[in-house]
Formats: sequence, structure tokens, C-alpha cells
Amino acid sequence: MRGSALKGLGHYQPANIVTNDDLARRVETNDEWIRTRTGIRERRIASESETVVDMASAAARMALEDARIDDVSLVVVASTTLMDRSPNSAARVSAELGLSGPAVLDINTACSGFEYALALADQAISMGTAEHALVIGAEKLSGVTDWTDRRTCVLTADGAGAVVLGPSPEPTISPVVWGSVPEMLEAVVIDKETQLFSQDGRSVMRWVLTEAADQAKRVLDRAGLTPADIDVFAFHQANLRLLEPLARALGVTDKQVLIRDIEESGNTSAASVPLGLSKAWHRGELPRGGRAFLFGFGGGFTFAGQVVTLPN
Amino acid sequence: MRGSALKGLGHYQPANIVTNDDLARRVETNDEWIRTRTGIRERRIASESETVVDMASAAARMALEDARIDDVSLVVVASTTLMDRSPNSAARVSAELGLSGPAVLDINTACSGFEYALALADQAISMGTAEHALVIGAEKLSGVTDWTDRRTCVLTADGAGAVVLGPSPEPTISPVVWGSVPEMLEAVVIDKETQLFSQDGRSVMRWVLTEAADQAKRVLDRAGLTPADIDVFAFHQANLRLLEPLARALGVTDKQVLIRDIEESGNTSAASVPLGLSKAWHRGELPRGGRAFLFGFGGGFTFAGQVVTLPN
Repeated sequence: MRGSALKGLGHYQPANIVTNDDLARRVETNDEWIRTRTGIRERRIASESETVVDMASAAARMALEDARIDDVSLVVVASTTLMDRSPNSAARVSAELGLSGPAVLDINTACSGFEYALALADQAISMGTAEHALVIGAEKLSGVTDWTDRRTCVLTADGAGAVVLGPSPEPTISPVVWGSVPEMLEAVVIDKETQLFSQDGRSVMRWVLTEAADQAKRVLDRAGLTPADIDVFAFHQANLRLLEPLARALGVTDKQVLIRDIEESGNTSAASVPLGLSKAWHRGELPRGGRAFLFGFGGGFTFAGQVVTLPN
Repeated sequence: MRGSALKGLGHYQPANIVTNDDLARRVETNDEWIRTRTGIRERRIASESETVVDMASAAARMALEDARIDDVSLVVVASTTLMDRSPNSAARVSAELGLSGPAVLDINTACSGFEYALALADQAISMGTAEHALVIGAEKLSGVTDWTDRRTCVLTADGAGAVVLGPSPEPTISPVVWGSVPEMLEAVVIDKETQLFSQDGRSVMRWVLTEAADQAKRVLDRAGLTPADIDVFAFHQANLRLLEPLARALGVTDKQVLIRDIEESGNTSAASVPLGLSKAWHRGELPRGGRAFLFGFGGGFTFAGQVVTLPN
């Protein structure tokens, strides 16, 4: 049975580094508090003129080069901070890259958007309605950040990650496990009026500590795998203090890679998983042909995950 | 091979009817001009407080009742006028309907959004990652309408349509044909600053008259069908003066149903196909088990289509 496979990865981060000391000059906080509570040392913030489409296009270009592919028949952009309604962001990315008329799709499922997008593209390729696909997570969270709120402005950041999928004689991406948590509808919110992000951090932490490991195990079960079969764990980079207990609950060992990109990138919502994965991939830290476990969770409250095979 | 099938349809329109005469009191226009150029007699406009989520939920509730299904594992909302970033609109619809934790997905591909969404849900069910799915097209175009522009404010309207998909022992929805037209990137625009809709009507008309029939035939080819095999043609309700020549180019006859809901609903972008289809279905005008040809086109510039089998 036909499936899809990861052919290349790419990423982009704005040049502007904002350190914890920089933030301490804007709000009542300090480097030690931020590191202790979140693991974040620094993050990248886009310039006023730099758009989600700009970042998505740069990440996508790198992924196409990595895959040695110059055209695709499907572009999916996952983002919570899209500004383009018509044409959508995927059409603008396609134009930026000079692609020849792909299906273009914008999706929003907040912080699990990339895993949703990857599943949709995998399914399209598996069913034969796309040949190659670009799957992009890109965010400009700085645009929805309340820079006077010291609880949230230390978390959020900008960036993009992308992968190229192509056809494979057999599946190499496990069936997605996806869902939502109705009672946490308002746990992670971008306010419709103010367009500002806020969250009930305790509620998210409780879910991660009590439910996330079970959902992660469902992802592995669906793939027919156990945690020991995984080479790389790429969780949504929400907060290092959430990822560490989740990794412990799954029994992740020192011999496995735990993506900790949040330390230098902050929380980039739908971009965080492909961004962290691509950076580690291009630094040569991930085994070629290895298995990466992807798991997103956040606003909605939503979650989604799958196991992918890294390029050979 | 497993596939998906249409189990029920639903729709919703705001109570407030705006006639051409009503518009003639706001801008320099008249009933005869609007009818001649667009076929539109009247349209529905939502109240200030009525949201895309409200309309989507109402259409979805009707589709669930029609399908006699009370829960689904995937909700997809296609819309160009979504206001909810986190939680997304699909999560809000799910909460409104009391669903038990489905995957929730917002997508935007402008006027072809419903056909994209239907394809994604069909593929998810076919691949076994969803069991039943709600696929909704919903728009509040009145919110992006320049009410001083007599060329566009006579076209746009509000509403929602929805279908329930469920598993089927064999495919009953043909593989989607989807794509975009790079050189028409700016033909149909919602301005990022003003959030107002405008279009190059001549460019869209040229595409419909010269290219749309070929793309529609690709959809039929992919389904292994010819126009004569189709019972119902549901094109995106852009303008009756575009749909009529497209229907002629495909050889649609008087024995086949051509959805002309634009006459009483205006152009509702991603909502127009499921809205028109569901209204005709619930009026008993469509053959049970018949074949409906869906074809969306618009902002991006995007297009997508497939053939679906109506419920038995």
C-alpha cells in the first residue's frame, strides 16, 4: 500500500535574538526566573515587516533544497497567526517559491497544527491526490503577545519549520492520533477582540502531567511501537518544564534525542516541532533513517501525534 | 478498499433578507442591473452578533440530525472569514454541539474551501484516522464587504452548509482534483489592512469561460465519469452569469439539476456549495443515491472538485 515519506527538512528564524535580560528591561522578570520556570534562554522575534509568509517561504525553500525537489502538488501552511485570507498564505508561499499551481491549503489547529497538517498531506499522498507536498508550520506569535504580561511574553516567539513529503512504496508515517479536550476549550486563548494570547498555565500543566503521556502512548500503539523504538522525541516546545516530565513518563533515555529547541527558540506554536527537528537534523544530530516521534498539543485544547521516519 | 460516504446534509441562513431594492437604497444600483449581471434576487445577512461559529454550528446540527448521528471524530470548518484563532472555530462548533473530543480543524482555501475540506475528511476516513466527520463551509462575508462598493456589495452574503461523512465499504467520493492558478494570485483579494473583499471580475470571468470547464472535466475523468453520468451540478455560487456558460460547456441538460441557489443566497464563498446542495436536498429536489458534481473556485486563485454520491 502506497504511503508517503519525509524527503527533506528546513527552517527559518528571524535574525533578531531577544535574551531574557532584554525582556527584564521591559517587564518585571529576570533570567533566572525565566530559565527555572520555562527553560528558555533566548528567542527570535520577527521585525515589523517580516510576515508569516516570509518565514514560511524561507523554511520551505530550505526543505525543498534538502529534498532536492523543485516543485510540489500540495502546500499546507499550519499557523495560528495567519494574516492572509485571500489569497491564503499557502498561495503566497507557492508564488514566492515559483511553484506551478499546487493545491494550497491554510490550516489552524493552534499548537498541534503541524501534526494535523502532516497527517493531511500524508493522507493525500497515500490516496494519490498529491505527489510531493510541502508541510509548513510558521508563526509570528510576537504579533499576538501582550508585551506587558510577564507570564506570557517570556514564552512566545517567531519562526518556521517545513518538511517535504514524497510518495513511498509503503507507509513511513504512522496513522495520526488526533483529538481535542472539550473541557479545556478556553485553556489557551487568543482573544477575538484584543488578538492577544493568554493561557491557564496550571490547566495546561495538569493535562500534560496527567493525560499527555497516555495520548502519546496511543500514538505509539497506533504505530505498533514502544518508546524504546524511537530515536528522536519532538514534542511541541511549550515549556521545558512540561517536556521533561512527559519524557520521563515515556521512559525516554539518554541514548534517545529529546528536542529541547525551546531553550534557544521559545514557544513558536505550530512551528515548534518542525523548527526544532530541522535545526537538529541540519546540525547532524539525528540518525538518518531514524524514527522521530512528533507530538503537538495546545490551543483548542487540541493534540495530535505520529511517528515519522527521517530521510535516509 | 474502505472509503467514505455522505450520510447527511444541513444548512443555515440568517433570518435577515436583503433584497436588491434594499441595496439600491445604500449604493447606486438597481434590481434589474443586479439580476441581469449576477442572477441574484436577494441574500441573507447575519446580525452583528451572529458569528461564523453560530452559523456553522446550526448547519452542522441539521446535518447530524439528517444523518441520525450524534457524535463524530473529526470536525473540519472551511471559511475565509474565521475570527477564532485559539480555540479554533471547529473546537467552538464541537463545544456547541457537545461532541466528545473530535479532531478539530479550521481550513481556509477561500471559495474552494469546502471541496478541499471534503477531500481531507474523505481521505482521513478512508485511511482510518476518523470514523465520522462533520465538514462545514461557513462564511460571514458581510464582515469583509465594502458596503460602499456597488460592484462587490451586491454579490456577498452570509450562511453555512454542512455534511456528515461516515465510513463506507468502498469509496463513494471521487479523488479530489485541486490546484491553483499562480498568475491569478491577486484576482480575488481580502485586503490585509482594510479586511475588505475586492476582485478583478474580468480575470475571474475569463478563467471560468476558458479554463474552468477543462478543470471540471479533469474532475470527471478522475472519477471515471462523463457529464451525462451526473445528476446534480453544484458549482461555487459565484455569479449565475458564470455558472450558466460553465454548465453549457459541460453539456448540462434540463434533465440534470443545476444548483442556482445564488439567486436567493448570493455568493457565500466556502459555504455556497454545501448550502445550495443542502437546501435542494431538504426540499426533495435531488435524487436519493444520485451523483452530485461539486466544483469550487475563487480566491488564491484556487479550484477543487469531486463527485459525491448523495445519501440513499
